[in-house]
Amino acid sequence: MTNKLDETKTFTPKFDADGLMPAMAIEHSTGTPLMLAYVNKAALQKSLQSGYACFWSRSRQAFWLKGETSGNRLKLIDILIDCDQDTICMLVEMEGAKAACHTGRKSCFYRKLTANDGEGEDLSLQFTDNQPLFDPAEVYNK
Amino acid sequence: MTNKLDETKTFTPKFDADGLMPAMAIEHSTGTPLMLAYVNKAALQKSLQSGYACFWSRSRQAFWLKGETSGNRLKLIDILIDCDQDTICMLVEMEGAKAACHTGRKSCFYRKLTANDGEGEDLSLQFTDNQPLFDPAEVYNK
Repeated sequence: MTNKLDETKTFTPKFDADGLMPAMAIEHSTGTPLMLAYVNKAALQKSLQSGYACFWSRSRQAFWLKGETSGNRLKLIDILIDCDQDTICMLVEMEGAKAACHTGRKSCFYRKLTANDGEGEDLSLQFTDNQPLFDPAEVYNK
Repeated sequence: MTNKLDETKTFTPKFDADGLMPAMAIEHSTGTPLMLAYVNKAALQKSLQSGYACFWSRSRQAFWLKGETSGNRLKLIDILIDCDQDTICMLVEMEGAKAACHTGRKSCFYRKLTANDGEGEDLSLQFTDNQPLFDPAEVYNK
């Protein structure tokens, strides 16, 4: 636990060795956690310029304007940064099918951990009520 | 964009090279984003066993039962995992002073990004209404 308190208005982002930091996206009106992706400084700037969530895709090594293909963009209300300036939180409202997940669901967090043995050593997943809002095959396989 | 859809109930976590994955904590009753930290598999197990958020501290290289010092523990309602199983989302209720941040605030996300030039190249921070709920000097410097 560090006791150094960051009470400044100076933007001193702490990107990791790859120049990235995690960015969580939360639906502003409901508080629903939607997804987590990564931003570099340029993706942050693009987000602020465009007013829509823009990430850096680690798998594609490219800018990722969320919803560019599907139309399911995330309109930015606010971009928050945490106390040690190494995590971003995007407060967003959803457009299009209002689905942030590539499985077609509103949220990427559609399963919860369950301990089968009560000890947390044997874990499985349980689906929550988070049904697909679009058919990924139709949207992405054109 | 990968089209591979994970629709299984099998827990196949994708930890990074350090054996960690990001874990965001969200207040269940309000949807307030509180913090982001990291978990390894053992911290996840400890969380499930104890019913309280337990992380792995990268700076201290040790288990971090959140609130062990301050009493401001995060009681777990659910632990969600995302579509590609590389991010955790803990839905929690707050105990003690109901402050998750070491600055004494409810949330670590108490500042938002502001573009001074409208282009997103000159950024500064603006405080949101997120006042300290405890005095960090009293809690941590004993």
